[in-house]
Amino acid sequence: MRILGVDPGTIVMGYGVIDESDDELALVSYGALAGNRSSPMGERLSFLYHELEKVIQHEQPEVMAIEQPFVGNNVKSAFAIGKAQAIAMLAAANHNIPSFEYTPAQIKRQVTNYGAGSKGQVQQMVKLQLGLDEVPQPDDAADALAVAICHWRGLHLKDRLNNQQEEG
Amino acid sequence: MRILGVDPGTIVMGYGVIDESDDELALVSYGALAGNRSSPMGERLSFLYHELEKVIQHEQPEVMAIEQPFVGNNVKSAFAIGKAQAIAMLAAANHNIPSFEYTPAQIKRQVTNYGAGSKGQVQQMVKLQLGLDEVPQPDDAADALAVAICHWRGLHLKDRLNNQQEEG
Repeated sequence: MRILGVDPGTIVMGYGVIDESDDELALVSYGALAGNRSSPMGERLSFLYHELEKVIQHEQPEVMAIEQPFVGNNVKSAFAIGKAQAIAMLAAANHNIPSFEYTPAQIKRQVTNYGAGSKGQVQQMVKLQLGLDEVPQPDDAADALAVAICHWRGLHLKDRLNNQQEEG
Repeated sequence: MRILGVDPGTIVMGYGVIDESDDELALVSYGALAGNRSSPMGERLSFLYHELEKVIQHEQPEVMAIEQPFVGNNVKSAFAIGKAQAIAMLAAANHNIPSFEYTPAQIKRQVTNYGAGSKGQVQQMVKLQLGLDEVPQPDDAADALAVAICHWRGLHLKDRLNNQQEEG
C-alpha cells in the first residue's frame, strides 16, 4: 500500500510518500511545494494543484491522508487551510484516489501511541518508523509523512483487530 | 464585461452570470450545482469543480466574483466554505480568469448602497437591477448574482472616480 500524506497550506504544501509491505514501512519521497506568496490566491492554488498532480502521477499512491491543522478560533486560518485541503482532495479525487482527513490529536495518538506527544516527538517517531538518520526537512514534509504514517497505523490496527476477532 | 458570481458551498454551489454594456446590466444565466450530500468530500469537490468548469466553458466569463460568507466564530464552517471557494478559484485560474472575494458587508454596501441592507433587500435589488419579474431562485443563485453585481458596481464606481479626476 502506497500512501501520500499532505500537510496543507496555501503558501507551502508539504507532501510525503510511504510504502508498506509485510508490516514494514519505507520512505519513498517527500518535499514541499512552495508557490509565489505574492501571487493572487487563485494562481497559487492552481500552481499547488498542478504540482501535487505531478507528485500523484509520478508516485501513483493508492490513498491520500491530509492533515486538518488545529487553528483554535482563527476563522481566517480555517478559510485558508480549507482552501489548501480542497486542492489536495480535488487532485486525489480527479485521479480516483480516496482521501482522509486527520486532526493533529489523531496524528499524535497514532504516531506516538499517546495523544500528548509534542511536535518534536512526532518528528522523532517519523524518523524511527521510516529508519532515517535525520528528521526530514522542512517541517511541512515531516508533518506530511506523519499524517501518512497515521493513516497506515489506523488501517493496521483495524486489520489486527479484525484478525483477532476472526481468530477468537 | 461578463461576470460570473459564485456563492460557495460544498453541498450547493450557486452561480449567476451577468453582462454589462454601456452601464446596463443584463442577466445571462443562473443556477445551483448540487452534489450528492452523502458522497465523500473529495468526490463532492470534484463534482462541483467539473460542473463549474462546464458553466465557465459555456458562458465564457471574463472575471469571477466569489462570496466569502460570514461564519462568525464557526471554524468548522470556515474550513468547509474555504474548500468550496478554492474549487471556484481553481476553476477560474485554470481558465485564466481572475477571481475576487467579497464579504456579505461589501455585497450589501455595493448592491443596496448601504451596508445595513437585509438579505431580502439585496435580493430585491438583484431583481430590480437585472429587470426581472421575480427574485431568482434558489437563494444560492440570487446570492451569486448579488456578488456578481457587487463586483461590477465596484469597477463602475472606480471608473467614475477616475473620469471625474481626469475631468477635474
